[in-house]
Amino acid sequence: MRDSTTASGPPSIGVDIGGTKVLAAVVDEAGRVVDTETTATPGVGPGIERASVSEVEDALVRVVEALTRVHGRCSVGVAAAGFVDARGERVRFAPHLPWRDEPLSERLTGRLGSSVVGDVYVDNDANCALAAEARFGAAGDAEHVVMITLGTGIGGALLLGGALHRGRNGMAGEFGHMTVVPGGRACECGGHGCWEQYCSGRALTRSAQAHGSTLSGPALTEAAQAGDPAAVAAYAEVGRWLGVGTANVVAALDPDLVVVGGGVSAAGELLLAPAREELAGTLVGAGHRELPAVVGARLGPLAGVVGAAELAREVF
Amino acid sequence: MRDSTTASGPPSIGVDIGGTKVLAAVVDEAGRVVDTETTATPGVGPGIERASVSEVEDALVRVVEALTRVHGRCSVGVAAAGFVDARGERVRFAPHLPWRDEPLSERLTGRLGSSVVGDVYVDNDANCALAAEARFGAAGDAEHVVMITLGTGIGGALLLGGALHRGRNGMAGEFGHMTVVPGGRACECGGHGCWEQYCSGRALTRSAQAHGSTLSGPALTEAAQAGDPAAVAAYAEVGRWLGVGTANVVAALDPDLVVVGGGVSAAGELLLAPAREELAGTLVGAGHRELPAVVGARLGPLAGVVGAAELAREVF
Repeated sequence: MRDSTTASGPPSIGVDIGGTKVLAAVVDEAGRVVDTETTATPGVGPGIERASVSEVEDALVRVVEALTRVHGRCSVGVAAAGFVDARGERVRFAPHLPWRDEPLSERLTGRLGSSVVGDVYVDNDANCALAAEARFGAAGDAEHVVMITLGTGIGGALLLGGALHRGRNGMAGEFGHMTVVPGGRACECGGHGCWEQYCSGRALTRSAQAHGSTLSGPALTEAAQAGDPAAVAAYAEVGRWLGVGTANVVAALDPDLVVVGGGVSAAGELLLAPAREELAGTLVGAGHRELPAVVGARLGPLAGVVGAAELAREVF
Repeated sequence: MRDSTTASGPPSIGVDIGGTKVLAAVVDEAGRVVDTETTATPGVGPGIERASVSEVEDALVRVVEALTRVHGRCSVGVAAAGFVDARGERVRFAPHLPWRDEPLSERLTGRLGSSVVGDVYVDNDANCALAAEARFGAAGDAEHVVMITLGTGIGGALLLGGALHRGRNGMAGEFGHMTVVPGGRACECGGHGCWEQYCSGRALTRSAQAHGSTLSGPALTEAAQAGDPAAVAAYAEVGRWLGVGTANVVAALDPDLVVVGGGVSAAGELLLAPAREELAGTLVGAGHRELPAVVGARLGPLAGVVGAAELAREVF
């Protein structure tokens, strides 16, 4: 981690395209967000047609230009919830956005012109979050890190030997569709028994319902923290499934550290303690190895913009 | 891959400690085995007590010295079926051998003395096999490679960004105990539903029995290649389970290539074709990505000694 007291140099802009809003932030070299701009994510909401490629681009250009008008030329990084190729140029596929093999970097670079330093950098949102946690958050000293983000589904990213591992297609870290129960619950991906069917925001809501609670989201987290038995039981169940899948990833990669982020991780130990217990109980050779620490992410919802800005800065 | 016509430089010795014999081989820079020496693995067989640490060391020293007497000083690498620390010094745990946190490199280096160049190098046998396949075999051009070895159980290794990924404890690539069926078949590791309970030499024998065959090992392979329905069905079943687990590893790592080695892989397409079909059918985003090729290993039972010799040569 860098010393946050010695930050200097030009700012960089990170942009995170979320389910409801597009957040752009000017981030300094110490990882501090010094300005933000937001706009609604186009084409999201009941009864609204999926946005066109140009509508989404318009939104991205708008928030970036609002910031560069104030802060001058910046490097720009975009965190996208989708499959981004390993060179950070194309969005191959984004489940909730119109991009299909879209040369997003080239298009945004062309439209933003001289307000951007170098080319616009594009990466998967989980890679951005992990880059941010590695620089400024929970993963500062670790060489091999698995990041698992629990939102609506599961996202993930890998830092191996100190560098992001993206894989051949830029699709490494897609843990959510690892099969944990062959022939299990049907998944939107067309498969069955995918991990995110058992461990995610949606799985949490389902588990809470099975335990008699009608709560979900932050209200469910608050209820669990207040000791509500159904909410606590739901986090414990999802936490155990977190441990099951984590054990598989740890068996394959033997990391130093597992960082759990995303909205579901806000419950902290209610989720992480059962995950650790399951991991220690099922991981092969557990008596002959150092288990990785399993910790919560530190940067919260800003991890995507901080990481995108940092990665863009590193590239140029 | 190096050009095998230009080999030169000093030879290196690789030693592979197998279930029945210890094989040592002098390997030239082109990966060619130019001499071998074998001895029985101490303490293996029905009614025989597990060998002592010194008995196993004696056997290793004996085969190496028999070769150095003829070939002069060599670098020496040892492939061990066990957990080896990431620095190649200690065997933390070996299921079938007496080593428990054993400083094998230091002990062998001390005993072999001036007949060895540098320190004796020790690595996991699957890492050695992958190093051999990367230099001289099936994985020559690939950057990110998953190696899966199907013997009695499952071993594995990872080449990521062109380098072996060993992990914090040197235990990366231990795919055999990834859970593929929660609450499934009991495993020697104490867990349930481990991948190697469904995909390994033992799983193959079990499947053949369920299909009415009493064959196992090479006889079962020959029967399958001759079209025996029970044998073919057993390989198809184990092949599908190979695909299930491979899909999980590929989802996490997005490699260029999957190399399948070990005795079970001798059946070739009878095993690999169902695995590829399962992989293509279950891997997330299969329509939006290039799938890794799934190929058989090329170096066969010599991969361990060739890789151990090559890794020892690289270190010194």
